[in-house]
Amino acid sequence: MSKKNKKLEEGITVKKEENFSEWYQQLIIKSGLADYTAVSGCIILKPLAYAIWEKIQKACDKEFKRIGIKNTCFPLLIPESALKKEQEHVHGFAPEVAWVTHTGNTKLNERLAIRPTSEAIMYESFSKWIRSWRDLPLRLNQWNNVVRWEFKNPVLFFRTREFLWNEGHTVFATEKEALAEGSQIKNIYKKVVEELMALPGIYGRKTEKEKFAGAVFSEKLHYCLPNGRVIEGPPFHHDGQNFAKAYNIKFKDEKGKEQYVWQNTWAISTRMLGIMFALHSDNKGLVLPPKIAENKVVIIPIGFEKDKKILSKAKELSKKLTIHQPILDDRTETTPGYKFNEWELKGIPLRIEIGPKDLAKKEIVIVRRDNGRKVSVKIKNLKKEINRELEDMQNNLFEKADKLLQGTLDKSETLKEAIKKIKEKKIVLVPLKNSAEVEEILKEKTGGAKTLFIDPENTQIKGKKCIISGEPADYWVYVGKSY
Amino acid sequence: MSKKNKKLEEGITVKKEENFSEWYQQLIIKSGLADYTAVSGCIILKPLAYAIWEKIQKACDKEFKRIGIKNTCFPLLIPESALKKEQEHVHGFAPEVAWVTHTGNTKLNERLAIRPTSEAIMYESFSKWIRSWRDLPLRLNQWNNVVRWEFKNPVLFFRTREFLWNEGHTVFATEKEALAEGSQIKNIYKKVVEELMALPGIYGRKTEKEKFAGAVFSEKLHYCLPNGRVIEGPPFHHDGQNFAKAYNIKFKDEKGKEQYVWQNTWAISTRMLGIMFALHSDNKGLVLPPKIAENKVVIIPIGFEKDKKILSKAKELSKKLTIHQPILDDRTETTPGYKFNEWELKGIPLRIEIGPKDLAKKEIVIVRRDNGRKVSVKIKNLKKEINRELEDMQNNLFEKADKLLQGTLDKSETLKEAIKKIKEKKIVLVPLKNSAEVEEILKEKTGGAKTLFIDPENTQIKGKKCIISGEPADYWVYVGKSY
Repeated sequence: MSKKNKKLEEGITVKKEENFSEWYQQLIIKSGLADYTAVSGCIILKPLAYAIWEKIQKACDKEFKRIGIKNTCFPLLIPESALKKEQEHVHGFAPEVAWVTHTGNTKLNERLAIRPTSEAIMYESFSKWIRSWRDLPLRLNQWNNVVRWEFKNPVLFFRTREFLWNEGHTVFATEKEALAEGSQIKNIYKKVVEELMALPGIYGRKTEKEKFAGAVFSEKLHYCLPNGRVIEGPPFHHDGQNFAKAYNIKFKDEKGKEQYVWQNTWAISTRMLGIMFALHSDNKGLVLPPKIAENKVVIIPIGFEKDKKILSKAKELSKKLTIHQPILDDRTETTPGYKFNEWELKGIPLRIEIGPKDLAKKEIVIVRRDNGRKVSVKIKNLKKEINRELEDMQNNLFEKADKLLQGTLDKSETLKEAIKKIKEKKIVLVPLKNSAEVEEILKEKTGGAKTLFIDPENTQIKGKKCIISGEPADYWVYVGKSY
Repeated sequence: MSKKNKKLEEGITVKKEENFSEWYQQLIIKSGLADYTAVSGCIILKPLAYAIWEKIQKACDKEFKRIGIKNTCFPLLIPESALKKEQEHVHGFAPEVAWVTHTGNTKLNERLAIRPTSEAIMYESFSKWIRSWRDLPLRLNQWNNVVRWEFKNPVLFFRTREFLWNEGHTVFATEKEALAEGSQIKNIYKKVVEELMALPGIYGRKTEKEKFAGAVFSEKLHYCLPNGRVIEGPPFHHDGQNFAKAYNIKFKDEKGKEQYVWQNTWAISTRMLGIMFALHSDNKGLVLPPKIAENKVVIIPIGFEKDKKILSKAKELSKKLTIHQPILDDRTETTPGYKFNEWELKGIPLRIEIGPKDLAKKEIVIVRRDNGRKVSVKIKNLKKEINRELEDMQNNLFEKADKLLQGTLDKSETLKEAIKKIKEKKIVLVPLKNSAEVEEILKEKTGGAKTLFIDPENTQIKGKKCIISGEPADYWVYVGKSY
């Protein structure tokens, strides 16, 4: 292989706007975020990606604890009989369960499921632990891994057969308290994702057909990918008393009367990482919001083999910027140009170049990863300028993503127009009837679009006609292609 | 059931010194640390225990990062063919592997092992990732769950079929660098366990027979339980080039010569929690070192139903002590005596009692969980006194545990005497030959004692005779019963 070919292979060879899927895959692998393994659909989160997940975890966990949630750890394996107790739930998950049938050389009497989610094993214990109103609320959370053996084509981060997440499982004496928790949780997720990941999303309720298996209703954050497909972020599910009845979770209220409990579940998963990588990154590689990047700055000394002062200045600056965990790239076997490309591929938010001419003027050059903007800065102003650029970059990424999202939203009251807009990669708000049959027809006629989420405001539906059935519509709902 | 019986059942009904195993089990369940599930050997870490694990994790993780270790996340499932590459390794783990054979309704072409440890899946990637000396050292770590389906009787925390741990996997260009990492890692574990958990342990090397499957040598921290049994804490394994050869992990050195890498692995697991609970706790329940306890103080107002000033003062103190995450127990349906028992069972380090007489003297009463000592303290000195008591309690627990450990260590040069001392629940340092056969005979003649660890100093072995074979001994080694 020639040197030229090798160089090409290290960078991304397709354009985001021309072939999003191939671009995305190359981005993830070549930037060193993740790698494939011998087990199809199960990926390695390399340190670059895992450090990001740790930041999300830490930020959410702090907020969960603030509102009184406690962390716990339930077993990975669930007996088949426990999984089968809630009928909707088991039908939703059984086709994707990884089954343990043997341990060592011994066949098990009962198969064990690797948790696809932990309702089945947690709620058996809840039923045992909860006796009286004094035991409520019970608000638990786990950070763990789950396995869902989807047979659709796996996609790095978006659809993997194992993923990491939190699963909150909370139990209340009244429906009112359970519903009140919803806004607490949704605000936490929205805040963390917006502030750290610079991702705007829209909360909306799923239709009956698209809700979580076993829930009364599901509300999720929705994000829009550059290919016009909507992808779901953190869900909040209100389960009502569905699981309480299936798993027999009852309590004696203050008057001594036995009642079923009210429950919620909620989660954020490593899928969010994929959404962030896909939305912010470009044809040069990864673009990370500064607040989520572990190393916010790379310092590249230029011509330092000839001039010792340059490297010692670079080291001095590196120490000054410790808070941003700078990387000082003093390799001698590669050119500055090669280094620029490499760190752009890996998504370091700011590059500092320091060469003989800069040094003579007591300056350095700062280059922004998001827009390539290059500015010369006096060394004495470095800290302030770095902070300003990082903050500006964080805001810029959010605004760009928000513009994309807003530009994708559209509205229509006829099927014909909706179909046209969906083809143009829009997400279209339409009046629709609450009916699984209507949703099936919608999917067929639009070449695979489905209902995404009910308009959170959902006003002015009176008098509107369902674009499929022509009957009075139940709600305004966004429809479009999804991941 | 009468009220009296009910009360008895809530506390621990056997004595630690009379029936350690039964006491230990009651301690864990009744204090609310953990619970059983429908899957035998797999336990729930309830919030009380999980919060402790989080503290250990956080303390270790900070130190790992300080020395340059990066976190990563490899898949849970390992193909059977990958697991079989290192022969010693697979023989060590295969009998305990939980096998996934089906996903949904489909039989897999190749069985997948739930990781019992991750060498097999990580080293396949290492072999792909590592090309040149520039890729080294590679120092990765994971915090995750593993499954080892042991057929021995499960014991809460000590021997569970799923447990949580960290697994460090590091790769170096030279043996020297790999060995140098040993003291870094061992110091981190020793420091965290000593300082947070108040547990003294002894590092010692395992004999050839007892080392990790695939390692060149294994060194572990060892702890001594009140029943005279030794239990192993965090291991450090040096793997030499064993796995490098099995998984073909090679690099080109600076001269362009291809070489196999040198590797280490190291871990700390939730087993450590069990060791801590068992060592410090007493017949009233859990005793936790203050530094590891989430809530360090419980405030119990007495007679507050009659005197409103008492509760308002208790609330005021609670706010002042926020840093210690105090619990204010203002339940009206239970007596102060009931509360004392409950919080003693749950291991809150300090109890503050505040009643009308105390308040009149501007005092409160502090009661220590470890020694039951009761002191009256002026309210104005509260913060200072609390800090003093917490610090003193932390030290006291360490010293007590150290005394137990030192009192268990003994020495002997004859088999007859060693057997006698082992019966007296001692751990006995004896001269022994490095031989699997000798260890088998030792086990037989002592009724199950085995080699625990080679004397770290291992001096003055010259001229000593093996207590089993009578031949020249290779080392001084501790022998005794283990968990």
